Amino acid sequence: MTRGHVLWLSAHPEPQSLSGSLRRDGISHLRAGGFEVTESDLYAMNWNPVVTRQDAGLKEQDRFYVSADVRSTYLHGRLPQDVAAEQEKLRAADAVVVQFPLWWYGMPAILKGWFDRVFVSGFAFGKEPATGRRLRFEQGPFTGKRALAAVTLGDRPASIGPRGKSGQLEELLFGLLHGTFAYTGMSALKPWALPSADFTEDYDAARYSLLTRLDRLFQEKPIPYRPQFTGHYTDDWELQPHIRPGETGISVHVEEA
Amino acid sequence: MTRGHVLWLSAHPEPQSLSGSLRRDGISHLRAGGFEVTESDLYAMNWNPVVTRQDAGLKEQDRFYVSADVRSTYLHGRLPQDVAAEQEKLRAADAVVVQFPLWWYGMPAILKGWFDRVFVSGFAFGKEPATGRRLRFEQGPFTGKRALAAVTLGDRPASIGPRGKSGQLEELLFGLLHGTFAYTGMSALKPWALPSADFTEDYDAARYSLLTRLDRLFQEKPIPYRPQFTGHYTDDWELQPHIRPGETGISVHVEEA
Repeated sequence: MTRGHVLWLSAHPEPQSLSGSLRRDGISHLRAGGFEVTESDLYAMNWNPVVTRQDAGLKEQDRFYVSADVRSTYLHGRLPQDVAAEQEKLRAADAVVVQFPLWWYGMPAILKGWFDRVFVSGFAFGKEPATGRRLRFEQGPFTGKRALAAVTLGDRPASIGPRGKSGQLEELLFGLLHGTFAYTGMSALKPWALPSADFTEDYDAARYSLLTRLDRLFQEKPIPYRPQFTGHYTDDWELQPHIRPGETGISVHVEEA
Repeated sequence: MTRGHVLWLSAHPEPQSLSGSLRRDGISHLRAGGFEVTESDLYAMNWNPVVTRQDAGLKEQDRFYVSADVRSTYLHGRLPQDVAAEQEKLRAADAVVVQFPLWWYGMPAILKGWFDRVFVSGFAFGKEPATGRRLRFEQGPFTGKRALAAVTLGDRPASIGPRGKSGQLEELLFGLLHGTFAYTGMSALKPWALPSADFTEDYDAARYSLLTRLDRLFQEKPIPYRPQFTGHYTDDWELQPHIRPGETGISVHVEEA
């Protein structure tokens, strides 16, 4: 009897690193707590992150209409085995932990390309064929799943705070938290972060900080991004003029408490 | 006699695409205008975007301290040939155009991994060995170079506007425009974008829109991100309390006109 399924995605090239230790300790902790954990350790898997025409079964001379061709290949059940296997893991998951070192203020390429190749049209978003209902945000296919980004980074703590030079972490990662997690229907949690990671002196404190977040993976209130289809936005995907009138910027897409 | 060197980076898997046409037309236009253009068409080059221990000349059993090991390998002139060649192109460039389709609200993996592998410590940022002077932002090694992101995307125009659901494009791309271009010293221009790209009916209008931006590549005023070392920020990388007091979010890092 499991308390739930967690998919743990990670993307660090060195198993004997801070990231590697946090991954092992995080996964052990979840398992000890009664969760079933599936891993995608992308470096260990030698994951190929590059979308190519082979993803759609096309030959060199075939013209590649990326999104449409990959969608059709998915719907015919003919995606490459490595992609299909990751989709199966995600289907089975109640929560996803996406752990990565922040490189150039984003995900390492090997991880970005997991989303590029796995989150294809028809699987991660799309339209219900019979009704035309749009499968996105609160109507997305991954509704009910939770997603936690767990990030190690070199910059100091204040740099990713509300007025930090590197950009507040939740805004910096908007493309992942909102544009990927929430877009596909997942409940995006506030990211966990370990700043000044290269100067971690107290590993136990770092580990404890992560584990306490994992303990609340299924209890924590997600970031309250506005739903798309219940009056917050115009048909042009713009915030309705009467909501936070005159305000701009990423934070307007989060509902206030 | 050249008017300047431009490096054109691109990342689309299909040469016979809208992106491919814009790339060819953009490059021809710059050349016709007297600029020398070098290309890195990452898909055509079969670029490897994944940082591995091979980048630092390490063997399977060697422990990989990613940033430090790659910096040291760079300083000894021993980076892999493919990485060294891209660094040489960038050194020679007065401007970089970074053209990509927006996938999951970010760069395709093959392009993200160009920055991961090419922009190594010691080359793209670091410390002056003799003085300890930090080479970053207005003191960065790429000062004097300009950078233009040119993005095609499926979402409609308003969705990337100031109140758009996808996030205002300049904020969505903060990790690239500020965290990568500006961080290394480059002058980041306002990105060029073609929304609703899948429904482009008037190619000439799209092309014209891009070419007019290219015509001003060396004249346009860059995004006025705040410098790091002249009093705007605390030593903790936080905006000084007296500047835009009480305000938060990515936009506080842009100086007002």
